[in-house]
Amino acid sequence: MTTQAITRRSTIKDVAERAKVSLKTVSRVINNEPSVTQGTRARVTQAITELDYEPDPSARNLRNGLSFVIGLVYDNPNPYHIIAVQKGVLAACRETGYGLQIQPVDSTSPLLADELVDFVQRSRLAGLVLTAPMSERKDLIDTLAARGIALVRIIAATEDPNDGLPCVYVDDRNAAYEITEHLIQLGHQRIGFLWGGPQHRSSGERYTGYEQALKDYGITVDEQLAVPGDYTFDDGFRGARCLLALQEPPTAIFGSNDEIAAGVLAAAKSAGIDVPYELSIAGFEDSPFSRQSWPPLTTAKQATESIAKQAARLLIGGLRQHAHADKPTPLRNQGFVPQLVVRGSTAPLRLRPPAIPDNL
Amino acid sequence: MTTQAITRRSTIKDVAERAKVSLKTVSRVINNEPSVTQGTRARVTQAITELDYEPDPSARNLRNGLSFVIGLVYDNPNPYHIIAVQKGVLAACRETGYGLQIQPVDSTSPLLADELVDFVQRSRLAGLVLTAPMSERKDLIDTLAARGIALVRIIAATEDPNDGLPCVYVDDRNAAYEITEHLIQLGHQRIGFLWGGPQHRSSGERYTGYEQALKDYGITVDEQLAVPGDYTFDDGFRGARCLLALQEPPTAIFGSNDEIAAGVLAAAKSAGIDVPYELSIAGFEDSPFSRQSWPPLTTAKQATESIAKQAARLLIGGLRQHAHADKPTPLRNQGFVPQLVVRGSTAPLRLRPPAIPDNL
Repeated sequence: MTTQAITRRSTIKDVAERAKVSLKTVSRVINNEPSVTQGTRARVTQAITELDYEPDPSARNLRNGLSFVIGLVYDNPNPYHIIAVQKGVLAACRETGYGLQIQPVDSTSPLLADELVDFVQRSRLAGLVLTAPMSERKDLIDTLAARGIALVRIIAATEDPNDGLPCVYVDDRNAAYEITEHLIQLGHQRIGFLWGGPQHRSSGERYTGYEQALKDYGITVDEQLAVPGDYTFDDGFRGARCLLALQEPPTAIFGSNDEIAAGVLAAAKSAGIDVPYELSIAGFEDSPFSRQSWPPLTTAKQATESIAKQAARLLIGGLRQHAHADKPTPLRNQGFVPQLVVRGSTAPLRLRPPAIPDNL
Repeated sequence: MTTQAITRRSTIKDVAERAKVSLKTVSRVINNEPSVTQGTRARVTQAITELDYEPDPSARNLRNGLSFVIGLVYDNPNPYHIIAVQKGVLAACRETGYGLQIQPVDSTSPLLADELVDFVQRSRLAGLVLTAPMSERKDLIDTLAARGIALVRIIAATEDPNDGLPCVYVDDRNAAYEITEHLIQLGHQRIGFLWGGPQHRSSGERYTGYEQALKDYGITVDEQLAVPGDYTFDDGFRGARCLLALQEPPTAIFGSNDEIAAGVLAAAKSAGIDVPYELSIAGFEDSPFSRQSWPPLTTAKQATESIAKQAARLLIGGLRQHAHADKPTPLRNQGFVPQLVVRGSTAPLRLRPPAIPDNL
């Protein structure tokens, strides 16, 4: 911070002279255009600070309305998932010169709408990236939109909701169908399902895909085999213990994310059950975790980072269109389908070679 | 955003009337004092936005100089570690009404100082929380301090560096000594060590603790047993493969974080080596990972979240003291010593019951 006395209002020309750049370059920095090197940008912003320069009053309101920081809102217990989402959003921010503020929230808080409005106003954020389950609460979205808050949602859905608000949608249902089909084709008929957090639409979508596959293959849906829980290792561990204690336990368990599946794996190991020969296990997301467990997990590759990046691009694209009426039409909502990845944790039912008979 | 025309400069009284609160309350919100409910704060900030209110010019510079957002800077490949750091900093932010912007960086970038100055200036951040290895680069810290950027560092050190800049220091060396001593006391003499990223001082400190314990117990330090790498699962896997391929392989391996130790565990399992009976494995940090592996990992509990929270408190405390000369003396630098946690991945050397002799 400088201590020099400012005797008259500084002009853009003062800034250009001090930073030794053209007026156009100062303007580019003020408008946050990407075609400025980091060194130049630093010099110009330093000159702006030192001179306490404010763009002229007619431009000031515009500038005040334009913030170059967006917020990411999440409520998810899985570090790998959050970091992947942050990485994707940060990549889009880097492309466009935006900053990222993070805000973990309690999705069950009755004050959530107020908290988010407060978050946006206090930090003068340009907009929000909302992840599930907040992104899937219609009341919340409507409130935020009515308050004029720009937002983009990452949601679980088989198709574009076409509700006039930007989103990126992930087809969890079809991916879960594929995983279940893979287990059925390996010969499994009793397949357990461990739910993720009930407030996440993804969890219901994954269950629907699982159920549909069973029905399509003529397998009776046994309610005992679906256990509620959250998207955590501990709930995977607990859920698997319940399933393995059944009189007729499943021969395969589909955990609705990789953390849950890792919990199933630990429960199986602690019970001396051989994976995959005595129990097949599948997860969902393809987090690094799924490759690092032993055996590595069959899962659905969700491309979380790309999904989050696309969402942030949608948000920022919309903000820029809003600011510059001459910009091309905004990006369109985009769907993603996670892909089945088969690894060592799933195998044909009881593949083990039969013991050699005594009487041979 | 409102579209109403502003015909005269708004005053604090206009804001108070519109928000239906007292002048004092508006002032409290502007000065970000904590004794305001979220609902009131939201109402006042909304009124400020709608009226395009700016505090009077003499106060404006003060206000411009006061930002209520801090930045967190990191370069670490471990999601669990980053999330724990974020959680700690966010907890301190919540206590004080600050927002948090995140900035992953490439610690080896020659432009790092410029990038960080640019990060602070563009987003008008009040200060930075620097994690290792950035926090341990004297040239970088000096440059940032010279530019007037408030900062706090989280570093690996056995004692307070007492260099006039705030920091929180973690005694990695003594904790690593304890882990190594634990392995020695179990009967191990050939103990492998897998390094973390060489640019992190913590990695060197952990090696020093390991080496000192070996020396104190009269065990020759064998250079073959220390393998370079980074703080990642993959490097743990690779490093363990190297060690296990030695003519005289170690009977215990100390991975310098939990991710590395998890990689060692996977390497052992893929080679059919029984953990802990044929190989003991220890990690460092006590991440959730260390409890979720099978067997769970012996490690050093690092309290990453508390460390990060304390660091952010130091930073924010300093900022507040700077803003209000009448505040009490700032918090002092604080040290943390990670504590040994013994779990199932370490055991006495070859504890297995001897086979019953044939001639019994």
